[in-house]
Amino acid sequence: MSQPSHSTLEKTALSQVKRGQKRASYDKTTALDIIDAALMCHVAQTKNGQAFVTPTCHWREGDYFYWHAHSKARNVQGPIDEPEKVCINISLLDGLVLARSAMHHSVNYRSVTLFGVPELIEDKAEKVRQFKIFLDKVSPGRWEQLRPVNDTEIKATGLVRIKIAEASVKFRAEPPVDDEEDYSWPVWAGVMPLERTWGENQQDPRQEEHYPEPTPPKAF
Amino acid sequence: MSQPSHSTLEKTALSQVKRGQKRASYDKTTALDIIDAALMCHVAQTKNGQAFVTPTCHWREGDYFYWHAHSKARNVQGPIDEPEKVCINISLLDGLVLARSAMHHSVNYRSVTLFGVPELIEDKAEKVRQFKIFLDKVSPGRWEQLRPVNDTEIKATGLVRIKIAEASVKFRAEPPVDDEEDYSWPVWAGVMPLERTWGENQQDPRQEEHYPEPTPPKAF
Repeated sequence: MSQPSHSTLEKTALSQVKRGQKRASYDKTTALDIIDAALMCHVAQTKNGQAFVTPTCHWREGDYFYWHAHSKARNVQGPIDEPEKVCINISLLDGLVLARSAMHHSVNYRSVTLFGVPELIEDKAEKVRQFKIFLDKVSPGRWEQLRPVNDTEIKATGLVRIKIAEASVKFRAEPPVDDEEDYSWPVWAGVMPLERTWGENQQDPRQEEHYPEPTPPKAF
Repeated sequence: MSQPSHSTLEKTALSQVKRGQKRASYDKTTALDIIDAALMCHVAQTKNGQAFVTPTCHWREGDYFYWHAHSKARNVQGPIDEPEKVCINISLLDGLVLARSAMHHSVNYRSVTLFGVPELIEDKAEKVRQFKIFLDKVSPGRWEQLRPVNDTEIKATGLVRIKIAEASVKFRAEPPVDDEEDYSWPVWAGVMPLERTWGENQQDPRQEEHYPEPTPPKAF
């Protein structure tokens, strides 16, 4: 796998965080960690000037962020209103922050926002190589056990990527920050952590055989 | 609380689901249940033709979907490129669907997409009433225990809403659907459910007193 280059994201007129700058970061390693820890992102793009946002699953190789969809789907068509960049957000909600005043209630979270013009990948071998990387994220080692992909499936699947460069990170991971005079207010304050776990595997009712159970994603 | 009206969402050129129509629904009750079960949404809007997407927390009263932010934040300014509607997606990822072929891997999820022109709410009493509804979603019964809001805080918080009308639902909640000839392929197939739970409360280190612990949100 190609390794990511450089250590800083590009702070531009688009990617610079405007509000809550004390929560902002342009550290690329932090961004890559958040991207890898999340299974789902939200892709925003315009069509005839109207914004649309689509949730989808993503993966990463090196400096590139990938997603796929039906080859006719809007979000793998590249920019429709030229020369538009898409805007993608990847967020993980980590907890509720309960303060002494309503105003200072907040959430702990990790969030990356990316901008870029999607690049369509049409080379068949490269598409298959990327699908394997995606499957390895979802369930390591599973690809080799599956019925192999065929040409119709490869053609029916649209694949795009953008470089992880023009981007920003925002995160919060701390107790409530109250107004100094409120710290003695008589109410519980702190963080209610949100935890994500994989529940018990639910085997397909149409499957009577017993096969080894899949490995879950390494992080989420 | 005002009750929602009508039972069907408005299927328009914007809100009609284009891909995967068999997963689509325009049932309003289903949409409201998903909106209420989620804490976070993604608001997409344009500025000078460029799409932006912002994660934020939301709440609902009756037929209206609300969010707030710093009063100068982009996502509570209403449409910047007139007469643009924002597009909001609310998604809950419920599990990974592991099929016998890479192509039929999928996810179980619940998703609502809303379109609308944000309506700015400036009436002070109505703003406070809405903040209480939001707090009651985050932690029922907490509002009355907090240091009361003041005028500066009310003014600093921008509040907007859109009507839940021009919208669509997509969801998937079932085992893998494989090509018929693949069902005998020798690999485990089924669903790996993703579960969200509230971890042990983390009291603010600056708080030495013991107060009753907060009630977590009723659904997530």
